[in-house]
Amino acid sequence: MQGDAFHVYDTTLRDGSQQEGLNLSVADKLAVARHLDDLGVGFIEGGWPGANPKDTEFFRRALTELDLRHAQLTAFGATRRAGVQAADDPQVAALRDSRAPVVTLVAKSHDRHVELALRTTLEENLAMIRDTVSHLRAEGQRVFLDAEHFFDGYKANRAYALEVVRTAAEAGADVVALCDTNGGMLPDELAEVVHEVVSAGARVGIHCHDDSGCAVANSLAAVKAGATHVQGCANGYGERSGNANLFTVIGNLQLKRGLRLVSDEQMAEMTRIAHAVSEVTNVTPGSQQPYVGLSAFAHKAGLHASAIKVDPDLYQHIDPATVGNDMRMLVSSMAGRASVELKGRELGYDLSGEKAKDVVARVKELESTGYTFEAADASFELLLREELTGVRQRHFEVESWRAIVERRPDGSMVSEATVKLHAKGERIVATGEGNGPVNALDNALRVALGRLYPELGRLELVDYKVRILEGTHGTGARTRVLIESSDGEREWGTVGVEDNVIAASWQALEEAVTYCLLHAGYEAS
Amino acid sequence: MQGDAFHVYDTTLRDGSQQEGLNLSVADKLAVARHLDDLGVGFIEGGWPGANPKDTEFFRRALTELDLRHAQLTAFGATRRAGVQAADDPQVAALRDSRAPVVTLVAKSHDRHVELALRTTLEENLAMIRDTVSHLRAEGQRVFLDAEHFFDGYKANRAYALEVVRTAAEAGADVVALCDTNGGMLPDELAEVVHEVVSAGARVGIHCHDDSGCAVANSLAAVKAGATHVQGCANGYGERSGNANLFTVIGNLQLKRGLRLVSDEQMAEMTRIAHAVSEVTNVTPGSQQPYVGLSAFAHKAGLHASAIKVDPDLYQHIDPATVGNDMRMLVSSMAGRASVELKGRELGYDLSGEKAKDVVARVKELESTGYTFEAADASFELLLREELTGVRQRHFEVESWRAIVERRPDGSMVSEATVKLHAKGERIVATGEGNGPVNALDNALRVALGRLYPELGRLELVDYKVRILEGTHGTGARTRVLIESSDGEREWGTVGVEDNVIAASWQALEEAVTYCLLHAGYEAS
Repeated sequence: MQGDAFHVYDTTLRDGSQQEGLNLSVADKLAVARHLDDLGVGFIEGGWPGANPKDTEFFRRALTELDLRHAQLTAFGATRRAGVQAADDPQVAALRDSRAPVVTLVAKSHDRHVELALRTTLEENLAMIRDTVSHLRAEGQRVFLDAEHFFDGYKANRAYALEVVRTAAEAGADVVALCDTNGGMLPDELAEVVHEVVSAGARVGIHCHDDSGCAVANSLAAVKAGATHVQGCANGYGERSGNANLFTVIGNLQLKRGLRLVSDEQMAEMTRIAHAVSEVTNVTPGSQQPYVGLSAFAHKAGLHASAIKVDPDLYQHIDPATVGNDMRMLVSSMAGRASVELKGRELGYDLSGEKAKDVVARVKELESTGYTFEAADASFELLLREELTGVRQRHFEVESWRAIVERRPDGSMVSEATVKLHAKGERIVATGEGNGPVNALDNALRVALGRLYPELGRLELVDYKVRILEGTHGTGARTRVLIESSDGEREWGTVGVEDNVIAASWQALEEAVTYCLLHAGYEAS
Repeated sequence: MQGDAFHVYDTTLRDGSQQEGLNLSVADKLAVARHLDDLGVGFIEGGWPGANPKDTEFFRRALTELDLRHAQLTAFGATRRAGVQAADDPQVAALRDSRAPVVTLVAKSHDRHVELALRTTLEENLAMIRDTVSHLRAEGQRVFLDAEHFFDGYKANRAYALEVVRTAAEAGADVVALCDTNGGMLPDELAEVVHEVVSAGARVGIHCHDDSGCAVANSLAAVKAGATHVQGCANGYGERSGNANLFTVIGNLQLKRGLRLVSDEQMAEMTRIAHAVSEVTNVTPGSQQPYVGLSAFAHKAGLHASAIKVDPDLYQHIDPATVGNDMRMLVSSMAGRASVELKGRELGYDLSGEKAKDVVARVKELESTGYTFEAADASFELLLREELTGVRQRHFEVESWRAIVERRPDGSMVSEATVKLHAKGERIVATGEGNGPVNALDNALRVALGRLYPELGRLELVDYKVRILEGTHGTGARTRVLIESSDGEREWGTVGVEDNVIAASWQALEEAVTYCLLHAGYEAS
């Protein structure tokens, strides 16, 4: 959308993953990258190839598995070591070999850091920047430079900090991103510095951290001062207090500053994407998050209520629909009549206005108890059918089930489950083993139904996610389980919410099987 | 501390309690008020006497039970109804009868709101302000005015918005707080408006919401533009995206703008107070919160760690001790040796280069199998002790355990666990029930050890996180469990990784108990 005139640059997969408690597998990183691409960001910084096996593998798999439609994949790394040729530095070679179209090099711009942390001379640091940038440019990659601790460096040694920018620009770096690495800057002083650097002629980017609670404001101030490249992270992830929240920055720049960064359709996906990303990171989404938070447009009754009836805009800074959020707070791809009607049509059900209203009410009620249907199409379809036909689809009636996990005196682990159910007029008792209680229940259920419904032989569970909904009751918390199933042709998701992980998993398993049989053409009783 | 020249005004108990899911009893409100008084804020807005019985009772009890040393208690309310005398308006009477030394009146300053929400004329609205302010002043109370929707009103009808300010000031309001009620303002335009109003001669205050993620920056911009009264909420509580975080505002104004708002001793209490308040509100504290968050000074990147060893200030915007916080190193594969050494030092273990190397190797090996130690200090310390002493700390030997989850034919769920172990030369068999298998195992373990180790009575599990590591093997995936425990004084995290969630949870539980006993002074065998 924004072309090259203005860069929306995401660093969730690199700087964002520095957040305490945030650990992304390669599969997670690929999933997050796809969500960010859907939002329409210009650049996705994937990590530091060569620095750790995970990031190296990410770039390897990205070449074949990541089909980005909007964003350019960016590799992050450092300038060459002191005293070697850029071409001979294995760290630089890994950046080149990542085959990412863009490389962002981090460089010291604070004289004290060069001497104390890098332990080299100010001159050599400039040479390291010059050589590495021109080497990678010669290798055909576009190069950006992250000027680390730029603002502290500017205060300490203005001339040197500016020399770093000039050196990088002259060597061929397209953007020099000024980093408030310690996050201590305030907007006004930051803007003055950015203005100075822009006047010096380089294309300037901004990279802010939220240690003063001003990361978003600092990013806006920098843009006003002439920066044309903004870095941030999904949901404000990042080390310490986090990086600038890219969603808030995008919302402010496009809806309040009039910059055209993403399409209206992409903007309307922002809330869904913010929550989808948090499902992958398994970090509970901040309900107060501007624009996309669950509570961002939530009003408590009272002073506001009456006025809101008169005119909602009286108490909203923007129309929540613009960012795909909802004044009534229940955020999900379903939570809205229009989207329910749409989804119904997509699934082949005609939802008249009234029907849709009932379904929306039911969905919101369930969401308030912890359900989410974003990743559970199949559960939503079963719910839809129940609302439309008045009966719950069932191919079998469960009488009881039991799961046992045991650690024996010899140290071996045994997981065993027994299922008792009625199907096609028979009462069936079946037992299964597994490497865990859920796996055992899964196997027991297949054993029980396999003879009557051979199609279940093709059923496979491809993904299993657990989310503890309130982390404040120790092991007594409520649990949500999301299961992704496949029959070799199609994939579908089901959800279960219960007081314990086994019961929640059972619920999702049962719906996964029901959905499988339904689409195998079995009439449900 | 700040005298009357500059006001730090807290509205946690009124506007902050509009936050979704935040409900404070009268006792809670009294407790929060005491914490805020300890911090040294100038004004504590207690609520709206007369609007609801709870707030009325709060002000009644505050007179006798709340012995504020720094702050002045403030009652919040509205201007008189249209067409009545202020003296005859029961709502105004309740403000007077609250006997709060200060009353803050909310008034409309946006013409559209006067007509649509208040349904009266612009003139009458001014009269309502004039009468109510002068009536309460005559009754001996100090009066502030909250000009609701001031900035939107200023855009819509500048003359009228300014007339509201003038009217209030002339009637005797000491401060007119300009409210960005919808939270949509950005710092630069907000500053311009504040500057205009200050030039008009009134004493100006600022009240910001975080809907654009700029509440803190907006507050700072207003102060720079001449506001001498700042409103905010503890931990950024508030409706929608919350109010300006008062702790962040205080930290920025005092540590970066040089205003003297609280004493150094009070500032050093800020982190403790922020967490104490969240204990009362029962809202999990935001670990990313600037200055006071658990992660606010936590470092993960190896890049940073090596430099931090040289000089911590290189990667901190302030000294965490100033606000009573600590720098923490997070042990992660991204970190490596430097951070392991620092972490060891933090835990009181001297790791010479060689030992550090062994520990790093062990950590990396464990992390490659799914462990993470950044949220599991206690597990890391146990590992560290094992590496240093060559023996694993054990207070008990587990012979076997078994967990059963059953759904009975009547639909009821039962979770039961049995633990067999040896401790202090005894063989103990104990059984526990719970709302899930892990909860049952937790209870069984406490029953088994409770008699021998009464300290376990204080052990509480405060958080429980489950992560499926490879989401590609369906229910056969590997599982990581993180448990956060507390003994009322300290909190610690443990980790378990196994093929199934029950076994992983058991591992984390066992380490949580071991760590608890270790720090209760029990020699391990």
